[in-house]
Amino acid sequence: MDRRSFLRNSTLGAGAAAASTLAAPAYAQGKRTLTMVTTWSRGLAGVHDAAERVATIITEMTDGQLTVDLKAAGELVGAFEVFDAVTAGQADMYHGADYYFVGQHPGYAFFTAVPFGLTAQEQVNWYYFDGGMELHDELGQIFGLKSFLGGNTGAQSGGWFRNEITGPEDFNGLKFRMPGLGGQALGKLGASVQNIPGGEVYQALSSGAIDGTEWIGPWADEKAGFQEITKIYYTAGFHEPGASLSVATNRDVFDSLSPAHQKIVEIASAEAHQWNLGQFLSANGAALQRLQSSGVTIREFPDSVWDAFGKASAEVHAENMGDDLYKRIHDSAMASMKSSSAWIKTSSGTYVAQRDRVLG
Amino acid sequence: MDRRSFLRNSTLGAGAAAASTLAAPAYAQGKRTLTMVTTWSRGLAGVHDAAERVATIITEMTDGQLTVDLKAAGELVGAFEVFDAVTAGQADMYHGADYYFVGQHPGYAFFTAVPFGLTAQEQVNWYYFDGGMELHDELGQIFGLKSFLGGNTGAQSGGWFRNEITGPEDFNGLKFRMPGLGGQALGKLGASVQNIPGGEVYQALSSGAIDGTEWIGPWADEKAGFQEITKIYYTAGFHEPGASLSVATNRDVFDSLSPAHQKIVEIASAEAHQWNLGQFLSANGAALQRLQSSGVTIREFPDSVWDAFGKASAEVHAENMGDDLYKRIHDSAMASMKSSSAWIKTSSGTYVAQRDRVLG
Repeated sequence: MDRRSFLRNSTLGAGAAAASTLAAPAYAQGKRTLTMVTTWSRGLAGVHDAAERVATIITEMTDGQLTVDLKAAGELVGAFEVFDAVTAGQADMYHGADYYFVGQHPGYAFFTAVPFGLTAQEQVNWYYFDGGMELHDELGQIFGLKSFLGGNTGAQSGGWFRNEITGPEDFNGLKFRMPGLGGQALGKLGASVQNIPGGEVYQALSSGAIDGTEWIGPWADEKAGFQEITKIYYTAGFHEPGASLSVATNRDVFDSLSPAHQKIVEIASAEAHQWNLGQFLSANGAALQRLQSSGVTIREFPDSVWDAFGKASAEVHAENMGDDLYKRIHDSAMASMKSSSAWIKTSSGTYVAQRDRVLG
Repeated sequence: MDRRSFLRNSTLGAGAAAASTLAAPAYAQGKRTLTMVTTWSRGLAGVHDAAERVATIITEMTDGQLTVDLKAAGELVGAFEVFDAVTAGQADMYHGADYYFVGQHPGYAFFTAVPFGLTAQEQVNWYYFDGGMELHDELGQIFGLKSFLGGNTGAQSGGWFRNEITGPEDFNGLKFRMPGLGGQALGKLGASVQNIPGGEVYQALSSGAIDGTEWIGPWADEKAGFQEITKIYYTAGFHEPGASLSVATNRDVFDSLSPAHQKIVEIASAEAHQWNLGQFLSANGAALQRLQSSGVTIREFPDSVWDAFGKASAEVHAENMGDDLYKRIHDSAMASMKSSSAWIKTSSGTYVAQRDRVLG
């Protein structure tokens, strides 16, 4: 979508938002439609589903008093324009991956995923019990947003390559799609990193604009069709160990909702987080087998590459630590991860290892 | 609570339930109170919190149109009487661990946890995407209940012992508290297994009625105070690798709710599942450190004990497989576990191992 059509569509969105925010108390007025824009093209497996889940259950739980009108990427604004559209009041809310907006503030990376950061479960522990939610809210106050987590892909795959990766030097000059701080880390290995919306990656890979890409995991990647172009797939990645998706509502719009409807937006988002993670993890196993059967080669990065990923990721974090809010988010997330990961390893880790050993 | 006071209190409950179910359509009538009984004494860390979470967010999301009145164990009926109280309409809903009700149907075990079964995340994958929820509903139809998962403790600890366990023979003659199929498996090792509500375990351990107990994990166990009596703690257990808690509503009561309120009960329960798991996993690490500092010895069972647990657990499953519904639940859960656990190991497992190696 070009800038002109963005503005044209935005005008429609602004009208709707203004109508819904100017008359207070809005919750005395009966039915209301909230426009949700997303960073996902319609039909993108899992991520569009999460947006749809949030929209549907808000509508159902309010008996249509709040009807969420979902506009996929390009239908009202482009994928990467949703943040500005909602802060400006041109749409009421967005569903997306907050690390697309590290340009607005690098701290947003932690509300999707950061390299060598939190798994999906560690993200839940941190967000709801160790201060993550409050820090997300502090970021949102800067931009006039009220944000909640609202989806999770689980640990993302290392991605699709035309040639095997035998050492960190193989990333030198590689044109690769990877958003967020992971992409910045990959850049330190000499990769030419590009940030491309999910719905446009297939075309970029197909045309040769990029040599390789990460997207999500076996199920979503298979649906996107990358196996038609590239044949080497790295299953474990360093960059998004449990990528959360977010629901961000224009703060004036949120404040105009009744307390019950505010709670419904909050709980619908949280429920979609768990639901979506289950969706990905239930589907990935069978999808990986199908990919393998269709001739895709499955690989893991060698230790030398993981070491290089680690060094580059630490550099990226260090570069951002001068920002006070980034540092507080980083330190909060990492302290929570350290505590909860140790217990998870002791309990669930020991159990699963014994289960594998005993059941064979 | 004795049978007489159960019946006396039940009469009050029955009156409330009758008032709320006889007049249809109830959702046209304005405010309504639902009585929730639980298997937890008031204040039991984590599990009572999950019940309270469900009650609170249902009340908040309906703006008090549905107010959930939480009655902890013993306040209306005893912990193990909640199932019968709700099926009989003497209370509107219960929050509890469904494996307390394997006497009603052994299939209920799978909606809490079974030995060598699903972790908390595998439980989510199965429940919401691989048929678990539909099977829970099929069980509920037999007893006049509408059930949803509504909490999770994560992988439970092996438990508290007066003496170290050096081999499976050490369980012979041991008086031990363990509910569900895990308890039945422990019985095959010669243990004298007892099923005691959470709120009564401390007294049983203190009086010597039992030699040892499992309860939940470091945080909830520390709050219960078992370290004051026993000093040896096994962190990983075979019996509850990711124990879910359930919200079960009397089916006539559920059917009398508006579709929006039915959806709110469903989504509130699901959200509490994720919230509660985060609560336990965020708190357990620090609690384990405190227990260690206070003189508790932390241990893991030797492989010979895990092997014996495995053999006994397989026997317990085999004994129940003659029941068609049990077999269908078992096969569905295990097929889902097999598929999703393989992917989780490949992706998240590889990532965490590399993170540990690289970050040190």
